[in-house]
Amino acid sequence: MAGSPFASMWADLDPVGRDGRTGGYRRYAWTREDATLREWFVAQAHARGLDVLEDRVGNQFAWWGDVDAHVTATGQGGVVTGSHLDSVPDGGAFDGPLGVVSGFAAVDALRAKGVRPARPLAVANFVDEEGARFGVACAGSRVLSGAMTAERALGLTDVDGVSMADALRASGRDPGEYGADEDMLRRIGAFVELHVEQGQALGDPGRLARLRLDEASAGVDAWGGAVAVGASIHPHGRWRIDLPGTANHAGTTAIADRSDAMLLAAEVTLAVRAAAERYGCVATVGRLEATPNGINAIASHVRLWLDARGADTSAVRATVTEVSSRVADLGGQVAEQSWTDDTPFTADLTSRVHAAVRGGQDVPLLSTGAGHDAGVLAAAGVPSAMLFVRNPTGISHSPQEFAEEADCHTGVDALTCVLEDLVAVEP
Amino acid sequence: MAGSPFASMWADLDPVGRDGRTGGYRRYAWTREDATLREWFVAQAHARGLDVLEDRVGNQFAWWGDVDAHVTATGQGGVVTGSHLDSVPDGGAFDGPLGVVSGFAAVDALRAKGVRPARPLAVANFVDEEGARFGVACAGSRVLSGAMTAERALGLTDVDGVSMADALRASGRDPGEYGADEDMLRRIGAFVELHVEQGQALGDPGRLARLRLDEASAGVDAWGGAVAVGASIHPHGRWRIDLPGTANHAGTTAIADRSDAMLLAAEVTLAVRAAAERYGCVATVGRLEATPNGINAIASHVRLWLDARGADTSAVRATVTEVSSRVADLGGQVAEQSWTDDTPFTADLTSRVHAAVRGGQDVPLLSTGAGHDAGVLAAAGVPSAMLFVRNPTGISHSPQEFAEEADCHTGVDALTCVLEDLVAVEP
Repeated sequence: MAGSPFASMWADLDPVGRDGRTGGYRRYAWTREDATLREWFVAQAHARGLDVLEDRVGNQFAWWGDVDAHVTATGQGGVVTGSHLDSVPDGGAFDGPLGVVSGFAAVDALRAKGVRPARPLAVANFVDEEGARFGVACAGSRVLSGAMTAERALGLTDVDGVSMADALRASGRDPGEYGADEDMLRRIGAFVELHVEQGQALGDPGRLARLRLDEASAGVDAWGGAVAVGASIHPHGRWRIDLPGTANHAGTTAIADRSDAMLLAAEVTLAVRAAAERYGCVATVGRLEATPNGINAIASHVRLWLDARGADTSAVRATVTEVSSRVADLGGQVAEQSWTDDTPFTADLTSRVHAAVRGGQDVPLLSTGAGHDAGVLAAAGVPSAMLFVRNPTGISHSPQEFAEEADCHTGVDALTCVLEDLVAVEP
Repeated sequence: MAGSPFASMWADLDPVGRDGRTGGYRRYAWTREDATLREWFVAQAHARGLDVLEDRVGNQFAWWGDVDAHVTATGQGGVVTGSHLDSVPDGGAFDGPLGVVSGFAAVDALRAKGVRPARPLAVANFVDEEGARFGVACAGSRVLSGAMTAERALGLTDVDGVSMADALRASGRDPGEYGADEDMLRRIGAFVELHVEQGQALGDPGRLARLRLDEASAGVDAWGGAVAVGASIHPHGRWRIDLPGTANHAGTTAIADRSDAMLLAAEVTLAVRAAAERYGCVATVGRLEATPNGINAIASHVRLWLDARGADTSAVRATVTEVSSRVADLGGQVAEQSWTDDTPFTADLTSRVHAAVRGGQDVPLLSTGAGHDAGVLAAAGVPSAMLFVRNPTGISHSPQEFAEEADCHTGVDALTCVLEDLVAVEP
């Protein structure tokens, strides 16, 4: 793909927010890096003659065609593809940007094929998908759709105590304008998000069978193995856990006189793993902040986060209940930051997307443990579907996250077929 | 003490580096806050007509009298009191500043009494005593005395990867000038550091007996209970522990496929407590840094620090050996960052200091688990002693750290008596 628009866009994004030491990306909402990415998005849209609309949350949409005229004339929205440009701490290059870049590349491919859309088509960049800064994933689509109130979002704070409201102000935005946006929701007639796979299902056909993905097709050839269609997003949530201690000097305070929050954090971290194993889901403590975090100071407070998910809602709930009970025994507190039930993507649209990719031949339907804006929008009643591109190692949320160039190219081809079908006539 | 020079100095320091949320102090070496504190020190010296000398490390000395003429004439150094102005993260107001402020207040008291020193007298501010930024406590006195090489100190890095060499440059200093300073060591004929107590020995006479401080005097009246003389510093050290994992997505990586550094950190934290209890010393994990520290990312690396101390060297060593063995089993690594053997303060000087405070009546001799610059200098052969001021709660390295105003006043009185004795004639 060297010299292609895809390769050129990829090269543009490569250095933005990349940490020199880890090689991972640090692209957090409403930071300088985020502003650079948003400007890049606008430049890509303008280079293609697309009109950029922003909703009240800051999600960006680059429209090919007059969507408002279309909504007025037909009562139907246009077709939207895209994903997000932000990252987890030290994240990989593909999670998010692959969907945005593939969206622009698909517009180029449709034009090269001479397609004249009967419906407007947009490439989208959803803001704050990872929730790396303010703690709530898919904040952009949650607020857009009303799944999270503006009041709650604006009050979220980052590690430095900066609220989202202050971060918006620092970015030259008015928090009073921030909130659900019915006008933008009406413009989205269908959303198809392309994303790098975050397990190894496509990378390992044997695993695909072992995972008992009932809907997965049996045979997976080289082509088909590069792309899958999303079936559903497993139930998942995040909980903030606060554990108490008493700050004191590490050298002069007898063991018997201590109240050490770091010890409680260790017990909770091990309890999380034990509960996940007992109930057969996944649960993780990935983020931990100790206060005062001094080598010679006993911790007066530890805040950590529980991320729990699984195919079975009752198993995830049982895991969280067991952990919460242990936290309560230790004198700590648990606050639910987000919860998303099992979220099937929209059935009609998913069938149509599946059929559009090689007639569905050798294209598996995959469920995933990762949350996505497409899941939030599907739950809000916006027809939404997903395409996954093979991840040979399954590694994600890591600098080692990777997809083969040829598979990315196949992903663009598949997305182009899907969009060509969707823009031709109303679904 | 309202309206006194002591109260005025205390009020000056009160806001510097104080965090509005925690109420604790964040005064780290070679930061803006540190620069403010260093400027305050110079201003206090100049207000009293004292000459400020800095050694090659950046430790500040405010001299009353011409110390270089004295060294040339007698071959002996002057008398130095003081402590440090930096803090641990969210530290208290007393740990360090009490000794510097009391030093200036004692100079004022000596002058008010008409004392004309036969030996020069200095108030000192030792830089980077807590090691909060670069990880090694007493860095200022260690480098001054040659106990730590300049090369090692300059290569230490803070949490943002900034080396001490870069921090010095950013403060307008030349790292090439940084290092041991024989000239300044020769000027220090005796060092007496006053410090807030960091246990509750003086706050609780019953505990004083239970702690089996063999040298502690039996009777402690109200006056005597306010001040103690230091006997020794327990053996103590710091170790950096690195634990490995593999970054991956918290939602899509099966439990069986995980390598999670946070789980190893939990096991090590619990192993530290168990070993300390088994061997009868104190050991603490107070600082922990997870990478990438994302809610939905499995930790690829956790770095934490072990602080271990105790009255008995072999018990501390056994604790560290047991923890190190566990870390090795888990695939991690342990690096010793500092180790200080049991350090008695200089015997002759300590006896003289003890006698100078009310003839030693009802003035206990205390050993401590906290490291101090006076311990580093004593180990380096510089005659050094300490005075402790009562801490009614025993809490230190915390915003709740506290000493009664009357006890601080008694501390100044005791220090004044000691300095009057020491500057009168050669010890």
